[in-house]
Amino acid sequence: MIYLDNSATTKPYPEVLDTLRTVSEHYFANPSSLHSLGGKSEMLLTRSREQAASLLHIDPSEIVFTSGGTEGNNLAIKGAAFAYRNRGKHLITTAIEHASAGHAFEQLETLGFEVTYLPVNSEGRISFEQFKKAYREDTILVSIMHVNNEVGTIQPVEEIGAFLKDKPKTVFHVDQVQGFAKVPLQLQTSGIDLCTISGHKFHGPKGTGLLYVRKGTLLSPLFAGGGQEQERRSGTENLPGICGMVKALRLTLEHQQEGINHLKRLQKKLFDGLKNIDNASVHTPEQLSAAHIVNVSLLGIKAEVLVHALEKNEIYVSTKSACSSKENGASGILVAMGVSPDEAEQAIRISMAYETTEQEIDVFLSTLAETVNQLKIVMR
Amino acid sequence: MIYLDNSATTKPYPEVLDTLRTVSEHYFANPSSLHSLGGKSEMLLTRSREQAASLLHIDPSEIVFTSGGTEGNNLAIKGAAFAYRNRGKHLITTAIEHASAGHAFEQLETLGFEVTYLPVNSEGRISFEQFKKAYREDTILVSIMHVNNEVGTIQPVEEIGAFLKDKPKTVFHVDQVQGFAKVPLQLQTSGIDLCTISGHKFHGPKGTGLLYVRKGTLLSPLFAGGGQEQERRSGTENLPGICGMVKALRLTLEHQQEGINHLKRLQKKLFDGLKNIDNASVHTPEQLSAAHIVNVSLLGIKAEVLVHALEKNEIYVSTKSACSSKENGASGILVAMGVSPDEAEQAIRISMAYETTEQEIDVFLSTLAETVNQLKIVMR
Repeated sequence: MIYLDNSATTKPYPEVLDTLRTVSEHYFANPSSLHSLGGKSEMLLTRSREQAASLLHIDPSEIVFTSGGTEGNNLAIKGAAFAYRNRGKHLITTAIEHASAGHAFEQLETLGFEVTYLPVNSEGRISFEQFKKAYREDTILVSIMHVNNEVGTIQPVEEIGAFLKDKPKTVFHVDQVQGFAKVPLQLQTSGIDLCTISGHKFHGPKGTGLLYVRKGTLLSPLFAGGGQEQERRSGTENLPGICGMVKALRLTLEHQQEGINHLKRLQKKLFDGLKNIDNASVHTPEQLSAAHIVNVSLLGIKAEVLVHALEKNEIYVSTKSACSSKENGASGILVAMGVSPDEAEQAIRISMAYETTEQEIDVFLSTLAETVNQLKIVMR
Repeated sequence: MIYLDNSATTKPYPEVLDTLRTVSEHYFANPSSLHSLGGKSEMLLTRSREQAASLLHIDPSEIVFTSGGTEGNNLAIKGAAFAYRNRGKHLITTAIEHASAGHAFEQLETLGFEVTYLPVNSEGRISFEQFKKAYREDTILVSIMHVNNEVGTIQPVEEIGAFLKDKPKTVFHVDQVQGFAKVPLQLQTSGIDLCTISGHKFHGPKGTGLLYVRKGTLLSPLFAGGGQEQERRSGTENLPGICGMVKALRLTLEHQQEGINHLKRLQKKLFDGLKNIDNASVHTPEQLSAAHIVNVSLLGIKAEVLVHALEKNEIYVSTKSACSSKENGASGILVAMGVSPDEAEQAIRISMAYETTEQEIDVFLSTLAETVNQLKIVMR
């Protein structure tokens, strides 16, 4: 099997599954229970939080453990908008966010907030100049994805963070779900107040995630209740999931630099190989993109047809984002980049992990070339 | 170890942990992915949903998989209040809900809703008559816990459901987190529109839960995004957790009747045994209470002291609710029942599971009697 859909989800590390089991068996008590069994669970929770904080160079109190990227984005965006609603009603985001951010903003519009959606250029990137023009005195929240989930384009979050550093009345949220461990981003020095990470995108357990909340940043909780996570996310902690995610975090970040270098070599191989397939039209920019994603249209072939043809060879790629792959219509980001709807419906996303091998990419490229030729003959 | 804190959380069944591992390894693909690997995950998700629905005698489309009881309560309460806010602003609940319901209502009060909190009698039970008096033309939501989590009192949710059946403008939510599998409740015929269940309360994985949403009941989602769970709860499905929870559901419901009968015998043993300890003042009513909980004050001994004394014998009980066990002050429900603050601070909760044995209860009772005697001597 050649699995090239790592932007949709990744296979959990075996060590992560071991942790899930061990913690479930031996630390099953509720960390909030007063007895020593609860105390043991609470200590493990504290240790996990400290380890995650140390890996991310942030303070343990700045971590909110969540159930994933969708919760993180909704908590950050709606939580900040509600917490600061008396300060202003203007919000800025982009036209190409993941649905979990985009639809959260649409909900806020129905509740009286005003949202500016920044457009993107032909590379799928917003412009810092346009952002500055959109910025207002009453902008209480800016939310920008770090790396686009379909095309891989890196957004200028560091420039925006630097600009917002001396704007204490504006909260800055970054959706780092796709960028994490693929494109380094310093949280402490970046001007970022909120940052969403999802566990299952880096070989952690499903149903886990982490929201970075800079000290002093307020959130109106989505989950009110027992007051866990410093009142920001109530509910009995999913301790096995948290420990599993922190293990995946460590295993991933330990190999981050070599992983990214490896992905860059594979991505170069893909860019080069696709140039030899004459109807391949690559949408991922070669500069300022994350190294694990290549988005490409095979002109004349519907993406869905190609996905199913490749899976006969046990090669798994995706059409646009998994979360919207069953909706009809072309990918929003490609259309926003100016790609024609026809061409956008022919786009597949190849997404790799550190574990993807050079040989797998070779096999993928040769199989793709053969498959495209066969499909062209069939369609004639 | 004698674990008598099953209302805080339960130990997961070994079979549940096997399921977590198998599904994590072999069904790791995203159910929303278009390729056949995603299709395999989606089929398993569908099968799990069908199995859960069949066990609960509801329709598969009426299930929303959540991350737990706190999410379920917040989604039900805030989701319904927002979805129906144009119909009216009046909400009814009780003064003794779990924090995840109670604090959700407090959030809604700050957003312009009016909430009636029904009081309880000396047994911790609301009165149906008072409920009827509180009910208004513009009541859009009624939310009542099924079984109180600290005392075990059963609330008249069936009577209220019958009353609300012909009130189509009012949504009825039941928090069944403590009652599930302890006190049978028919969802289809009950007049209940929303019902919250938590996986880790019946030996399922942490971070899992289920919200029953009767066909036609609208919810404004807490998690906007990719549109999973019929737009009611977006986010990549935690398939291992879901399958693990459904396995726990099946294993639990298969033994429900004998489990409840067994608990009733153990509870009777506790009631009888506590009568022989002269400073024991039992708060759990002998009639109309769930069989797995006994709440009792050992007069003159602070609950915290007793919990720590018992844990030296590897017996684990709790003070009030785990979620608020570290807050200062007496239990809200006991005070609402008219128990003096002093006596309320001396209350411990003994909570059992189907797996609790008669011998464990015998050991608990004799150890409690000894411990109480020792503590009385020390305190003299």
